[in-house]
Amino acid sequence: MQMAGRIYIVGMGPGREEMMTGEALYALEQADVIIGYTVYLNLLPERFRDKELLSTPMRMEEERCRMCFTEAGKGKRVALVCSGDAGIYGMASLMYEIGREYSQTELVMIPGITAASSGAAVLGAPVNHDFCVISLSDLLTPWGKIEQRLKAAAEGDFAIVLYNPSSHKRKDYLRRACDILLAAVEEERVCGYVENIGREGTKAEVCTLRELRNREVNMFTTVFIGNSGSEIINGKLITKRGYQIERDHR
Amino acid sequence: MQMAGRIYIVGMGPGREEMMTGEALYALEQADVIIGYTVYLNLLPERFRDKELLSTPMRMEEERCRMCFTEAGKGKRVALVCSGDAGIYGMASLMYEIGREYSQTELVMIPGITAASSGAAVLGAPVNHDFCVISLSDLLTPWGKIEQRLKAAAEGDFAIVLYNPSSHKRKDYLRRACDILLAAVEEERVCGYVENIGREGTKAEVCTLRELRNREVNMFTTVFIGNSGSEIINGKLITKRGYQIERDHR
Repeated sequence: MQMAGRIYIVGMGPGREEMMTGEALYALEQADVIIGYTVYLNLLPERFRDKELLSTPMRMEEERCRMCFTEAGKGKRVALVCSGDAGIYGMASLMYEIGREYSQTELVMIPGITAASSGAAVLGAPVNHDFCVISLSDLLTPWGKIEQRLKAAAEGDFAIVLYNPSSHKRKDYLRRACDILLAAVEEERVCGYVENIGREGTKAEVCTLRELRNREVNMFTTVFIGNSGSEIINGKLITKRGYQIERDHR
Repeated sequence: MQMAGRIYIVGMGPGREEMMTGEALYALEQADVIIGYTVYLNLLPERFRDKELLSTPMRMEEERCRMCFTEAGKGKRVALVCSGDAGIYGMASLMYEIGREYSQTELVMIPGITAASSGAAVLGAPVNHDFCVISLSDLLTPWGKIEQRLKAAAEGDFAIVLYNPSSHKRKDYLRRACDILLAAVEEERVCGYVENIGREGTKAEVCTLRELRNREVNMFTTVFIGNSGSEIINGKLITKRGYQIERDHR
């Protein structure tokens, strides 16, 4: 099956138009059809809503990707939208995998602001040194692998960002993750989490790892765990780079 | 010392204006003075260059940060610019640390596209599953800590992004990092690197970890190392999320 054209895989960032890049907006302006999960299509700036919008339900990711190639094959300019960055827990790799079957269609990635950046900006500077990003969703990853990565992240003294910390079916996953970390990391380790980043009702909290273990978070939350040198400064979660501040300036 | 005002800490992304967010551009438009390392000031879109621009040399980061608070104290609207995201190896944490002394000045973080996202977009989808970000610069971090993190990243089977893989004084650091990874990871592990992301002369290469060990990269390079399931697909470096593709679609 040979099809032509080019598909833009667009990272929308957290949601607000002001947090999208110029090239992401340009790709949407140029598109004949915008394809994405319904929740993301609903985040589109008003002026793009009268374009042809196509979607498939959750868990129908492969169909959504194939839809992009089919529409491109009709000669349409296609934009596939993902929240955050399509290359970070988005549709990018699946598009490249399926793209093997559509060798005449070019894929162009347009990066967006991912929750590790946008959530960090709300909390202060929690990932201003080496960090790990781990998803707690075991829909596509065996839980054993997630555990292995949590342990390694703690051993490496990384700051940690947890994506998908909870869902209706995975209510206790953040607690389980905290328990794994608590085997290697002190209870008072500083943490934070942000709900609805860049959308209405943004809510941020800082707490200790012990407290985090008992917090209930929802699926629109991103969790940050500091490294051994992180601190709360004026209510913000700060992971330092190691500059020695000249105290005699005071 | 009590000063007033608000300082915007702006992530400029890789450099091209189209890769900046609307809110980053808005903060620069509103600013009376833009402060940053000279290299970043030179990346500013032309129309901001007639604003008051202030800088300090490399390694004078504390002075640069204090300059922001001093200018804000004069009643000016200040934007501090960093390349990429100011919260990822940028000035964010130092600003919060120094901000302790200037309690009336509010700091507002404006996230930008970091090289883990923008470099990934050039290479394909190298960080589309759990990943670590590690800087190889030992200017502020003991090399032993960097080694510990490289080992942990390999043990956790993370995709890895290396920032600052080289400099004039650290020519062999990427080789040293590869040697540490090669103790745990197969020689044929797929890797890639991007030079001058989002600027003139962008150059991307994919290779194996064994090959990467012998490549010379410069300080404007970001390096990506796949996880155990990563693949090269049509010349792109792809780290899969784990979707099972329905082969009967072929």
